[in-house]
Amino acid sequence: MPEFLELLPPPVALAHLLVHLAPNPLPEEIDTARAVGRVTAAPVVAPHPLPAFPRATVDGYAVRAADTFGANDSMPAYLQVVGEIPMGAASGFELAPAQCALIHTGGMLPERSDAVVMVEHTQGARPGEVEVLRAVAAGENVLKVGEDVSAGEEVIPAGVRLRQAEIGGLVALGFTRVRVAGRPRLGILSSGDEVVPPEDTPGPGQVRDVNAYTLSALVEASGGQPVTYGIVPDQEAALRGTAARALAECDGVVITAGSSASTRDLTAQVVNGLGQPGVLVHGVNVRPGKPTILAVCDGKPVIGLPGNPVSALVIASLFVTPVVYALLGLSRVPFQPSISARLALNLPSQAGREDWIPVRLVAVADGYLADPVFGKSNLIFSLARADGLVRIPADATGLSAGEIVQVVIL
Amino acid sequence: MPEFLELLPPPVALAHLLVHLAPNPLPEEIDTARAVGRVTAAPVVAPHPLPAFPRATVDGYAVRAADTFGANDSMPAYLQVVGEIPMGAASGFELAPAQCALIHTGGMLPERSDAVVMVEHTQGARPGEVEVLRAVAAGENVLKVGEDVSAGEEVIPAGVRLRQAEIGGLVALGFTRVRVAGRPRLGILSSGDEVVPPEDTPGPGQVRDVNAYTLSALVEASGGQPVTYGIVPDQEAALRGTAARALAECDGVVITAGSSASTRDLTAQVVNGLGQPGVLVHGVNVRPGKPTILAVCDGKPVIGLPGNPVSALVIASLFVTPVVYALLGLSRVPFQPSISARLALNLPSQAGREDWIPVRLVAVADGYLADPVFGKSNLIFSLARADGLVRIPADATGLSAGEIVQVVIL
Repeated sequence: MPEFLELLPPPVALAHLLVHLAPNPLPEEIDTARAVGRVTAAPVVAPHPLPAFPRATVDGYAVRAADTFGANDSMPAYLQVVGEIPMGAASGFELAPAQCALIHTGGMLPERSDAVVMVEHTQGARPGEVEVLRAVAAGENVLKVGEDVSAGEEVIPAGVRLRQAEIGGLVALGFTRVRVAGRPRLGILSSGDEVVPPEDTPGPGQVRDVNAYTLSALVEASGGQPVTYGIVPDQEAALRGTAARALAECDGVVITAGSSASTRDLTAQVVNGLGQPGVLVHGVNVRPGKPTILAVCDGKPVIGLPGNPVSALVIASLFVTPVVYALLGLSRVPFQPSISARLALNLPSQAGREDWIPVRLVAVADGYLADPVFGKSNLIFSLARADGLVRIPADATGLSAGEIVQVVIL
Repeated sequence: MPEFLELLPPPVALAHLLVHLAPNPLPEEIDTARAVGRVTAAPVVAPHPLPAFPRATVDGYAVRAADTFGANDSMPAYLQVVGEIPMGAASGFELAPAQCALIHTGGMLPERSDAVVMVEHTQGARPGEVEVLRAVAAGENVLKVGEDVSAGEEVIPAGVRLRQAEIGGLVALGFTRVRVAGRPRLGILSSGDEVVPPEDTPGPGQVRDVNAYTLSALVEASGGQPVTYGIVPDQEAALRGTAARALAECDGVVITAGSSASTRDLTAQVVNGLGQPGVLVHGVNVRPGKPTILAVCDGKPVIGLPGNPVSALVIASLFVTPVVYALLGLSRVPFQPSISARLALNLPSQAGREDWIPVRLVAVADGYLADPVFGKSNLIFSLARADGLVRIPADATGLSAGEIVQVVIL
């Protein structure tokens, strides 16, 4: 197996693949209300400033700041109250010197007014008059026009994954539709003579096809669109036929195959026949997931994953998710959130190999304990019992009990 | 405003609310393929063990371990190869002493076989015979029946949010449908005379209704179902009518109101009239979001949020999300993932008050710098420019530049 002579670390292997990929070029316009998690296909430019009018940030009196100069408790400024500013409308008047107007938080300042005195810093005087007990500077307690966003400003670049905050920003500017990158279609094939559909009762030696479900969920969570192609027997013609169809119909293909040497070789051979340049990486220095295949066939990514459901999921998070991001044109990979925890046990590891260990998080007095999930790895419920994964870097020979580790949340 | 005399810290305020809530009682059965993020409504019990048959974890020879006792390079054990075990089927034979069978990773061990010798630890001998160069113990390189899950075992308790791993586990057991808690319906009302629908062009003093969009997204991300009731003017009868209808039709109601004292008071008054016990908390010791209202009316939660979009989003993550979790019957609150970062600046804060500060994360040599987003807070694009939020605890008077903080990812 020459492919295992020199195993690449996962980030290097990924770089070999990504260099061949370009963003999926077909954007679509969708409702902003449904756009959380989607990626902008074009920069968003503000058609008008935000705020669009000068707004009070407190309840009080809109004033001309100069009129309050020197005001304090013992020497208040006396201002004439010329009206109350209605919410959602212009005042309809402008302030003359020594005038003020009652204003509510969010209200629009009248013309010639440049500050707001908090109601707490005033007190009633004669009817139609108020005592201002504290001076305000121009701009105080006011949001200026364009203080958030100027007209013509690029407020969201292309390639940004929209979160709740961006949805709010789009709506504030009146964009009820937004142009986003189409969701890349990833074809998902499960190969293996022992694999049966989940709705079947497995016979002796048979197992249900878990990967089509878990990988579909992962592709969807990454921003892609899974397209399942069912279970293909371990025969070259069948695998080649289905893989070629998936490649033609989708933006990329993910094949899960058995972990035996023969099925691995069959997958690599079929992938190499799908298009140029073919297999770029065969075997990655990671556990679980050593027999991973990374390929590009006629400009589209093809990824061969181990058939074991745990290996397939861990490896998919390392390779399939970044591939979806690349096809989406995401300009910045999302932060990988994690929880800091104290490792409960020593975790030995082979130097040069990156390991991913499922752990449970146990709340303790000063934070969390990361407790490795016992039992043979590669069992799907072992993963379900875990809260996250701890990475042992390739340059370490393990991690020590008591060490602080970052647990990537599952 | 007596409600502000004693402001509760957010966790205490939340506890006052949660104690009144019970899980939404209507479960539904859905396709496992669509169940990521949903919450189990009943425990899942394994109908059969996993693995369901003894499986090889390596390529090699299925053996009776006793036959390899003492085998080594200089003194191999000679075993008769009686066949090759096909993937996805029983071997159809049992091993007699001194016999073995070729087996692939994932293959089913034949009867009377209890271990697998890796192919690397064998070499060919005479035709139909293999030399075993290393002894194996019983169970070696084998997944035993039930090693992951026993028949009858509770594999997923009720109240668990399903992740990709649980989806895989369900499918492995043949559950293509799963019983989950119904998504709680949260009615969302925006009140304010200055608020217009996003598709309208705001006139002077008017702003678009951002909150209905952002809060819908937040409710959905939390596992609930948003139901929007549009924009209601700041008039008691209108607000009461719409709020009562939302309460009748939904499992809870979220009202965003202006931040002026008068609209806050109006909201509290209307909420108090919706049902018993009414307003539990009016005012929380947090910035942004002090004027928050937490209420229970006839067994359903009613939450009044500040109208400012940033305050509304921050406060919704503190109160609306946990309410959705409670209605879902979630047995454990999901981990709040974060990124450790070094604070770039001093952040002063008022003792006794919890502050949430938007920050950008800047990659530096040894990790991340958390750089507070400048400008007046409470501007929606200030939040969009941030990567996450830093919490200044109530018992601190601020955080110091250089301190390591946990940035909650937006």
